[in-house]
Amino acid sequence: MLNYSGRLDSVYAALSDGSRRAMVDRLSRGPASVKELAEPLTMSLPAVLQHLRVLEESGLVRSQKVGRVRTCRLEPAALQQAEQWLADRRALWADRLDRLEEFLDSSSSELDSSSSEGDQP
Amino acid sequence: MLNYSGRLDSVYAALSDGSRRAMVDRLSRGPASVKELAEPLTMSLPAVLQHLRVLEESGLVRSQKVGRVRTCRLEPAALQQAEQWLADRRALWADRLDRLEEFLDSSSSELDSSSSEGDQP
Repeated sequence: MLNYSGRLDSVYAALSDGSRRAMVDRLSRGPASVKELAEPLTMSLPAVLQHLRVLEESGLVRSQKVGRVRTCRLEPAALQQAEQWLADRRALWADRLDRLEEFLDSSSSELDSSSSEGDQP
Repeated sequence: MLNYSGRLDSVYAALSDGSRRAMVDRLSRGPASVKELAEPLTMSLPAVLQHLRVLEESGLVRSQKVGRVRTCRLEPAALQQAEQWLADRRALWADRLDRLEEFLDSSSSELDSSSSEGDQP
């Protein structure tokens, strides 16, 4: 089992390829067979299966074979974990900007009040 | 210049390493020198610079050298693009679930009404 950081490593690595993102995009619209996943991609079936393996190992996708058809599904938990990590960093960054803005506002009002005090006779 | 897909490739690849995520996390709290970025990481300075290069090439980070100090800053646009891609796929997935739920609700009410019609004498 991968720990939290190892899981993020493999989810982001899985997403760093346009063909794998196209497969995730397709599966976010609903389950699909390997054949359906392969159709829009200009690559051999073994190449598709290799990409599918990377997606499954990352936990983004799971597949099940019934008879001759392997059906693939998105695992939204892994997708959400990757999104949450990014959202948390963006929140930290936005929070820092807010505090910077507050600081600049308060500095500028202090400056205004000290300059208007200076204007008084 | 990287296109949208190439940019996503390199942003996700940059995020697929725990040390680089630690650097992004640090920079989401404010700019930092290379020395400050390296401090919590147990690796050589050349290794830190190599990771920094990957982050800069992905567009997640930019750095500027003034005198002897190189200061690194987060580039929130790249972070946001990577987050948005994930958010869009999650929305597609959630939308599909909603439609599935609506379908099941309507099928079950049709079933209820046809079964209560059947109950009538």
